[in-house]
Amino acid sequence: MPASAAPFPAPRLGEPYLLTPGPLTTAFSTKEAMLKDWGSWDADFRAMTKSICDQLVALAGDTRGEFVCVPMQGSGSFSVEAMLGTFVARDGKVLVLANGAYGLRAAETMRYLGRAHTLIDKGDYMPPRGDEVGAALDADPGITHVIAIHCETSSGILNPVAEISEAVYARGRKLLIDSMSAFGAIDLDVNRIRYEAMVSSANKCIEGVPGFGFVVARRSELEAAKGNSHSLALDLHAQWAYMEKTGQWRYTPPTHVVAAFLEALRLHAEEGGVAARGARYVRNRDVMVEGMRAIGFETLLKDRWLSPIIVTFFCPADPNFVFARFYELMKAKGFIIYPGKLTVVDSFRIGCIGRMDEHVMRKVVQAAKEALAEMGVASAAPPEAAIAERAKLAA
Amino acid sequence: MPASAAPFPAPRLGEPYLLTPGPLTTAFSTKEAMLKDWGSWDADFRAMTKSICDQLVALAGDTRGEFVCVPMQGSGSFSVEAMLGTFVARDGKVLVLANGAYGLRAAETMRYLGRAHTLIDKGDYMPPRGDEVGAALDADPGITHVIAIHCETSSGILNPVAEISEAVYARGRKLLIDSMSAFGAIDLDVNRIRYEAMVSSANKCIEGVPGFGFVVARRSELEAAKGNSHSLALDLHAQWAYMEKTGQWRYTPPTHVVAAFLEALRLHAEEGGVAARGARYVRNRDVMVEGMRAIGFETLLKDRWLSPIIVTFFCPADPNFVFARFYELMKAKGFIIYPGKLTVVDSFRIGCIGRMDEHVMRKVVQAAKEALAEMGVASAAPPEAAIAERAKLAA
Ligand SMILES: Cc1ncc(COP(=O)(O)O)c(C=O)c1O
Ligand SMILES: Cc1ncc(COP(=O)(O)O)c(C=O)c1O
Repeated sequence: MPASAAPFPAPRLGEPYLLTPGPLTTAFSTKEAMLKDWGSWDADFRAMTKSICDQLVALAGDTRGEFVCVPMQGSGSFSVEAMLGTFVARDGKVLVLANGAYGLRAAETMRYLGRAHTLIDKGDYMPPRGDEVGAALDADPGITHVIAIHCETSSGILNPVAEISEAVYARGRKLLIDSMSAFGAIDLDVNRIRYEAMVSSANKCIEGVPGFGFVVARRSELEAAKGNSHSLALDLHAQWAYMEKTGQWRYTPPTHVVAAFLEALRLHAEEGGVAARGARYVRNRDVMVEGMRAIGFETLLKDRWLSPIIVTFFCPADPNFVFARFYELMKAKGFIIYPGKLTVVDSFRIGCIGRMDEHVMRKVVQAAKEALAEMGVASAAPPEAAIAERAKLAA
Repeated sequence: MPASAAPFPAPRLGEPYLLTPGPLTTAFSTKEAMLKDWGSWDADFRAMTKSICDQLVALAGDTRGEFVCVPMQGSGSFSVEAMLGTFVARDGKVLVLANGAYGLRAAETMRYLGRAHTLIDKGDYMPPRGDEVGAALDADPGITHVIAIHCETSSGILNPVAEISEAVYARGRKLLIDSMSAFGAIDLDVNRIRYEAMVSSANKCIEGVPGFGFVVARRSELEAAKGNSHSLALDLHAQWAYMEKTGQWRYTPPTHVVAAFLEALRLHAEEGGVAARGARYVRNRDVMVEGMRAIGFETLLKDRWLSPIIVTFFCPADPNFVFARFYELMKAKGFIIYPGKLTVVDSFRIGCIGRMDEHVMRKVVQAAKEALAEMGVASAAPPEAAIAERAKLAA
């Protein structure tokens, strides 16, 4: 289905579109899949779980049976913590690559775990590059693992995981990836980018509803990880071993959310898989960014670093612009947008993911234009400080 | 609404009833509440979260603002681990009262946490009594907390938490309760039974769908618990502090599951709250147990210990009885039952909770009768060993 063929039907009941990085607007059939109760012990539900895991491993490009998928109850952060706690040995050491909230959260997780870690903190959005990762690894042979954030959703930057992976494996270390907001729309094929494990969740680019995350991991790493975990609930090895033996989740799965995810995966395949999903989001971003720029807004990032997941815009310098007001006006027009997370200048974010296409994005721009007029904002141009900030990042 | 007025409508689409301890059969309107996507940052969703927390604190009977509710993503076990990791100081010590799988899981959780604990293990179902708890506490002044399982779902026994609470507080220690499968149907009023925190989940007696758990805890205990947690994701103090400040869940909530739970709470109140919900389950159990006994089945527990949550039956001694076959026959007749968890003799379980009433329970008994006939089982009487086992437990 070409993304531009026909607009997706609008959400029912006058619901707003969620221009947020998940929970996001999902297909109606995805939600409808939740109208049934499933016994978690029953064979029907076990088959659903197996299908999901098989499909996710396939999406990661594994054709040699080297990778397995382990779903984990809870939000995406639970799966990130499960991945770190399970794959990093108690005497291991992690280099955390941070350029935003999610990188910092990974470091915070390591602090809770009480395991050795060191941080490259690039601030609000500057990308960690392969050469500096290489230098950090050269300087500290004790580092066993690197964790990188694929799309750092707090700014929307797409981090250069391919060059990071090369730097890591050239030095015989291991890479873990938080691909929460990217997997399913941006290539993370194990044949092209080497890593030991990556994590994502149900309510991002696969367009399911929130309730669980999943880790796609190299089987041999998982086998070697027994006894590492600091937490019973978050022990990915135990979760996997139980599932291998019984076909069931170790503890009660979010059955309805799982059923919805199965339908979301069907729609993902029907659309044409990772490439087509990614193409639709790229188109969403391009149409939306072009339109927003046309009415005077400016993006935090230069084009090269813009992900097709979510885009950060500077708040206009005009004192009539008040984000809370802008949010309510946009909501009244049918669009839920997202606050920014930058520490230096005011910003907001608009997501490109979820069950919507360029027709919707055009309406978003129109709504933003009207909202500015209603607020009496003459120009959407950002303050000087914002422009100076952006100049720091190479094109 | 008197429980016996009219049968609840059957699940749609020829769906079987789930006679399991959660996920369970929920009302259609509960599932219908999931047909919408919610922005987790939005004020509408924050209001839903607040309503849920307020209602849960009220269900626990707190009228003096001494208790707060903290929801936690993941299955119930995640909330149990969060409760233990947050309320037990790193140099604390826990006495775990076990008489089945969930008590043992609490002990296993403590082992993962690496914090001091000791275990009273009563085997498959014998209840831990107040006097032995008292003796264990007298013998070890280092014990700071006791964890008790309210309804030990693996056998269905209702443990004597009131007498346990008395023994604990008479010695100045603190009680934590896993009331996963009981809260909402069995009294756990803070004015009648003293405890510091109790945990339950969305998909048990409130009849929501699975995806999160919640802890109702004394505010002062939570305030004092900062820094205890071994896990970032499972840090109840951090979850609570963030929610107090922002009204939002700290990480992505299972929005649809939360919406369903709000509707489930509405139905719970409409039915008449804890007392009415409990009365319906008691009636379900009484009708079902009476019917099953009439066709020759025997319960593991004597009446005094039978909970209105789930009942364990011995498998018939007749060699024609094969549980896997019985399960499939029951499923074909529209009822999903549950395997047993006893270590000494074969058993199965039938749940009494979920959106069903005595009319349904009568059909369950009829289905069991037919299934026995189809399997060629002449008598449902259990083996001698089972009767001998049961004799161990006082009436
Ligand atoms: C890159 C990244 N990592 C981690 C998370 C945390 O996920 P959750 O909010 O589901 O815990 C997110 C959520 O947006 C994310 O985008
Ligand atoms: C008493 C008790 N504790 C803990 C649990 C674990 O809950 P979950 O399977 O949601 O992790 C259950 C589940 O039935 C239970 O009945």
